[in-house]
Amino acid sequence: MPVSQKIHGMLSRSSWIRKMFEEGLLLRKKLGPENVFDFSLGNPNVPPPCEFKNALTEVASQSLPGQHAYMPNAGYPETREAIAAHLTQKFKVPLKFEHIIMTCGAAGALNVTLKTLLDAGDEVIIPTPYFVEYEFYVDNAGGVPRLVPTKKDFSLDLEAIRSAFTERTRAVLINSPNNPTGRVYDAETIKELSDILEEKERLYQRAVYLISDEPYNEIVYDGIALPSIMEYCRNSIIAYSYSKCLSVPGERIGYLALHPELAELEDVLGGMILCNRILGFINAPALMQRVIARIQGVQVNVGEYQRKRDLLCEGLSACGYSFAKPDGTFYLFVRSPIADDVAYVRALQQRGILTTPGVGFGGPGYFRIAYCVEDATIIKALPGFAETLQEYQNSRSV
Amino acid sequence: MPVSQKIHGMLSRSSWIRKMFEEGLLLRKKLGPENVFDFSLGNPNVPPPCEFKNALTEVASQSLPGQHAYMPNAGYPETREAIAAHLTQKFKVPLKFEHIIMTCGAAGALNVTLKTLLDAGDEVIIPTPYFVEYEFYVDNAGGVPRLVPTKKDFSLDLEAIRSAFTERTRAVLINSPNNPTGRVYDAETIKELSDILEEKERLYQRAVYLISDEPYNEIVYDGIALPSIMEYCRNSIIAYSYSKCLSVPGERIGYLALHPELAELEDVLGGMILCNRILGFINAPALMQRVIARIQGVQVNVGEYQRKRDLLCEGLSACGYSFAKPDGTFYLFVRSPIADDVAYVRALQQRGILTTPGVGFGGPGYFRIAYCVEDATIIKALPGFAETLQEYQNSRSV
Repeated sequence: MPVSQKIHGMLSRSSWIRKMFEEGLLLRKKLGPENVFDFSLGNPNVPPPCEFKNALTEVASQSLPGQHAYMPNAGYPETREAIAAHLTQKFKVPLKFEHIIMTCGAAGALNVTLKTLLDAGDEVIIPTPYFVEYEFYVDNAGGVPRLVPTKKDFSLDLEAIRSAFTERTRAVLINSPNNPTGRVYDAETIKELSDILEEKERLYQRAVYLISDEPYNEIVYDGIALPSIMEYCRNSIIAYSYSKCLSVPGERIGYLALHPELAELEDVLGGMILCNRILGFINAPALMQRVIARIQGVQVNVGEYQRKRDLLCEGLSACGYSFAKPDGTFYLFVRSPIADDVAYVRALQQRGILTTPGVGFGGPGYFRIAYCVEDATIIKALPGFAETLQEYQNSRSV
Repeated sequence: MPVSQKIHGMLSRSSWIRKMFEEGLLLRKKLGPENVFDFSLGNPNVPPPCEFKNALTEVASQSLPGQHAYMPNAGYPETREAIAAHLTQKFKVPLKFEHIIMTCGAAGALNVTLKTLLDAGDEVIIPTPYFVEYEFYVDNAGGVPRLVPTKKDFSLDLEAIRSAFTERTRAVLINSPNNPTGRVYDAETIKELSDILEEKERLYQRAVYLISDEPYNEIVYDGIALPSIMEYCRNSIIAYSYSKCLSVPGERIGYLALHPELAELEDVLGGMILCNRILGFINAPALMQRVIARIQGVQVNVGEYQRKRDLLCEGLSACGYSFAKPDGTFYLFVRSPIADDVAYVRALQQRGILTTPGVGFGGPGYFRIAYCVEDATIIKALPGFAETLQEYQNSRSV
């Protein structure tokens, strides 16, 4: 075997996703690209805000000494300072530059965090459905994911989380607004979750961390207020990415923010800076660090995503699909009319509609629609969604 | 313990480096920054070529749809195409875009490679002295480094490498031009090393890869020709970074190049693309991918580093220091006049000279001087180098 056994296993497990991707390509050839409606990827289609573009051209045209050189592995102090000031207002907790570590996006931030915290066999509680890459990230650090289903409306099942704790539990990893469900956890939920963590810390005499993956932090609708995790939980670590709020996922820029009263803060910070280096990130890209320092608080027009959500939800509701309306993100997690979500996703494919089966998110019986697409794509795909559902309903009533 | 036991161990082991760094800061306060000569870091001081700046401002001012969006995890096909064309000429092996994977620098490239190839307990042969981060990279992937000393002139000891092979050996990791020694391995050495790999592949009935870390590829002096690893070795993987050739280490841009006839190429490529994603890199920064696609073959003025090398080597030689003159990089690995290189580095510190002890590179009894600094820094530091040596010689003759 040329690659490691683990990677070989991952490659074969992921091969059906690759197969569907290849089928998608074939579909474009067969139906013509104008008849293929791709809802499979969370690649933001709303353009970056003009403030981003302005900051980028300004920074790119500067000529500073050592402008593209190594900086401290945690990032430029000015950038970390600007973020800390912004978050102090937003999170209602006094953060300083030393509580911020610049990372290559949220994926980098999470890998750094897990590598810092986990010994082999340590457990991380993850509510499902979930962004399935978490499982790889935990495994990279030698940890074990403990998957805990959410309730029917995708809100946290706090009793199930409480029961999932063991003496090996090192962290709970949440993602709100959630990919793939679009659910936002409210303040009361976060407070209760924090109480559970404290209870278990007393029981096991060991710090348990709440890791909150927040790349969709700004993408919330209907005036919903996203609660500040830090306001409610002392042992909280936020993994953030600018990918979605600025529509720049290709640039790999994000950060880790640590609660100023985090258990043994110094060691965790030191470990994270070390891990950022030894995992091979070294530091977050220099140029983007300088760009985002100038545009804290700037974000894409979230109204665009809300319009797309409404268009899609109304359309699918009218056809007879059932789902929990998302509070945020640009994902809709729809109940599959048949138990076999992979089969249903394939049926949609026959009408040129590309979605992702729920099994890919630990949520079988559902499928995910990423609606970060043109409005026209949603409008043109609705008849196909309706016909596919009709087909299954007819076959059932026969 | 708040951080993992492994990270805790690493933090305490690296604490003397941190301590020396802190001492360096104190030194600046004590002596004044103008009297501190910092040769400790490999942070290039020659400015990026103007072609880089021009390409950057051009790319930054473009407005393409999805300009900062996700691209395929392996990178933009155009960028990979441009690199393949450049390397085909340089390496004398016909590379296509699919043999190139864009990475977050060479550190990212090496972590991706090792994660792809190693099962727990697999061994990687590494000649010493070496860039000590390799040990972390191998460990991240669950592997075991097998350190093999080089000869007195820092050329490869091929017999020692042959003897270090076991049935668990998965790869040999070389770095030429070498950090910290500046040594370049010649064509004959690479050919013989490749023969050893083939011999061991036959013996153990298993592919063994030559991983060549080449961030200093262009930084060679005296018209020395760096041999093409790919020309001599079929199972070769090149990890490259633009950090040094363009003086942009903060931007995290590099690539992996795989020999077109690599053993089970498809699986290795697939594994690497998967690992680039699951390790949290996702993809190399988008903007820099577009920049470097336009300036293949462009590099900093290497003559500047050669001038610095000559200035330093002549100066230290005149004082009585002994070393093997480097063929490339911007490092000089000097024999410590006393066995305890840490003590000697501390003695230099007393005269405001910051260097790195050889133990930090698996080369005790030496110290490293990174001469990517102003000429004036070298000139002003030479008396301090001379006085420190004199002091030790006097104390010995007493």
